[in-house]
Formats: sequence, structure tokens, C-alpha cells
Amino acid sequence: MINYVLASGSPRRRELLEQIGIAFEVCAAQGEETITKKLPADIVEELSYAKACEVAERYSDRYQTDTTVIIGADTIVAYGSEIMGKPKSEDDAAKMLRKLQNEVHQVYTGVTLVIFEQGEKRSITFHEKTDVQMYAMTEEQIQAYVATGEPMDKAGAYAIQGKCAVYIKGIQGDYNNVVGLPVAGLMQRLFSIFGAAAVYLNI
Amino acid sequence: MINYVLASGSPRRRELLEQIGIAFEVCAAQGEETITKKLPADIVEELSYAKACEVAERYSDRYQTDTTVIIGADTIVAYGSEIMGKPKSEDDAAKMLRKLQNEVHQVYTGVTLVIFEQGEKRSITFHEKTDVQMYAMTEEQIQAYVATGEPMDKAGAYAIQGKCAVYIKGIQGDYNNVVGLPVAGLMQRLFSIFGAAAVYLNI
Repeated sequence: MINYVLASGSPRRRELLEQIGIAFEVCAAQGEETITKKLPADIVEELSYAKACEVAERYSDRYQTDTTVIIGADTIVAYGSEIMGKPKSEDDAAKMLRKLQNEVHQVYTGVTLVIFEQGEKRSITFHEKTDVQMYAMTEEQIQAYVATGEPMDKAGAYAIQGKCAVYIKGIQGDYNNVVGLPVAGLMQRLFSIFGAAAVYLNI
Repeated sequence: MINYVLASGSPRRRELLEQIGIAFEVCAAQGEETITKKLPADIVEELSYAKACEVAERYSDRYQTDTTVIIGADTIVAYGSEIMGKPKSEDDAAKMLRKLQNEVHQVYTGVTLVIFEQGEKRSITFHEKTDVQMYAMTEEQIQAYVATGEPMDKAGAYAIQGKCAVYIKGIQGDYNNVVGLPVAGLMQRLFSIFGAAAVYLNI
């Protein structure tokens, strides 16, 4: 039996783990996000590590007995040299969308797994990158989309799994990485570590 | 005011239209699927056209007054020269998955829009193609996945939006095309025809 703990309050990440049939609990990391890196891949890896470690620290006593996997994740959008997190305001959201529309950008999600097993603790960190190509959006379409409120808590100010689907021409890479958690890459790593039967069927 | 009619009973297609905020009704086409074409793109276009036309025929009196868009769609999986529809049995599903795992295949969705506007009827047919790359699956994983029942009503015997997400390494193209309805391509075409405000805000 493996316990899974999602170190994120994101409803999208929760839904993705539910979709693949994993039983888990949620213990969202609370800490401030401190970025010391420059490259998108390094930033999301660093932040996912901080989140997973914070929750691992808080709950380490509890997880000494059973095998436990704590999952930290962080997602950002990169457009050229610009890094986009969540918009600070509706104006900020509109600004991001004006840049992203009719162009290709990259979405990076970093994932850290902190694994408690037989009294030992270890961690694995990786990231995935997905290219996203958007259709052109008129100023009216940008304003109408911002007015839905959907962009406000999303990196890059859009939800590929929401109404913004209308403006996504195509992607190259993992779709769920854009949603916020590359569940395929995550599960494939767990399969390698624990064996498929232990992980997927969770027996 | 535009009326939208989805000529498909597929819950996935319904969910995609709901996701993008379109109000619509469902009138599933009932007819037998008769294929006279050879190429995947031609097959899905032909079947989407047949579905949309069947529903347009049935409801044409009703739609004389308002602008109405009837949406027919058909999805198949192509692996090399092989065309995969829905599996006929669990054995058939396992056979398909054995072929698709660890390989790249193509998903084609054909879409036909039959448009009633000011007493005139016209139609537009298009298709989209998405490349899907799967991770390797062991025989145990294939059997476990088939046992979930998820593959049975899906072209190619898998649901990218379901538990099979774990085995999808990445895609090239539109994700929702794999789910069963390329809503972006569909909406972009409606924007061109009716103008964005009329379509998206549905006013």
C-alpha cells in the first residue's frame, strides 16, 4: 500500500490524480515561492522541490511506517525570455493573452516526488515541457475571456482545459503538463520505482 | 441567436461543448455507418457528413426560422494502414492496445456543420489529425486497463481523457480532437462565418 499526498491546493492537479484512479490526500504547501533560478525548467523544478519538501517536513513523523509519496508541482508559461506566472490583475491577464495569442509558447511543469520507504527518505525531481500554439484572438475576445474570470488563477492567464480550448490550435508534448501535472511522466517514474502493480492498482 | 445541435450521443463531445460554454441540444444520429472511402481523413469526413445530414433532414422544418448549426462528428484511430474504430470485445480492445502501445498513431476526427440560415442550408466539412505517442504497456497493464471497461466504447480502445492518460507520452496537434471533437477548429470556423460575438457570446 502506497500513500499519495498531493502538496498542492490546485483543483486541476487533484482532478488529474482522480482521473487516473489514484487514491490520495491533499496537504497544500503554504510557503512563499522563492525563485533563485533563471531558466524556466530550473524554476519549476526548484519550486516543486520546495513545495514537496515543505509538506514532507510537516508530515514526516506520520509517514515513517507506510510507503508514502509526496507530490509537489509547479507550472509556468515561458514566452521567449519572459516567464509568466499567475496574473496579478485583469489588466495583467489581458497583457499576457495579447502576447500569447497567435504565437507558440512553452509550458513547463516541475514535479518533485519525496518518497518515504522503510524509514528512508529520497526525492526525484523532473520537468516536462509542452509547446502550445494559439489561434489569433481579437481584443474583444481577450476582454470577453478575461471577463469569465477563468484566467485569474492560471499561469499565463489561460486554462487549456476550460473556455480557452477554443483558442488552442495545437500542442506538442503532454497535454496534462499544460493543465498542471504531467501524470503520465509521474506515473511512469513510479512504475519504474515500485513496479506497475504496486502503483497503479495500489495493492 | 444561434441554435446548436450536436448530432452525436457521445458524452465526451457533449462535455467539450459544455466546457467552452456553448448552449446546445443533442439529437444523436441513428443511422448505420456506411463507409465507401479508404483514407482515414475521407472516412471521418464522410461519416460526420452522414450524421449531420441525417439530423438536419429530421429537423429541417423546425430550423427554418432561427439560425441553426448542426454538428456531426466521427473519430477513428489509424495505425499504419490499419483503421481502428470501437473494439468489438475485450479481446479486440487488448489487441488494439498491444499494437498502439510504445508507438505513434494518428487520431482523425471529421466534423460536418450543416447550417440553416435565413431559409438557406449549407454545409462545411473538415477534419483534424493528431499524432499520439504512447508509452510501453506490459500485458498486465493492458489487461488491467481493459478490465476497467473504459476502452469498450472508444475508437482505438482508449480514452486519453481517462485512465489511459498514464500511458500517453505526448501528442502533436489538438488534444480535443483525440477526445472526439476539435472544438477549437470548429469554433474558429464559426467565428469566420458568423463573427466572434455572435458565436462565442451567442448573442
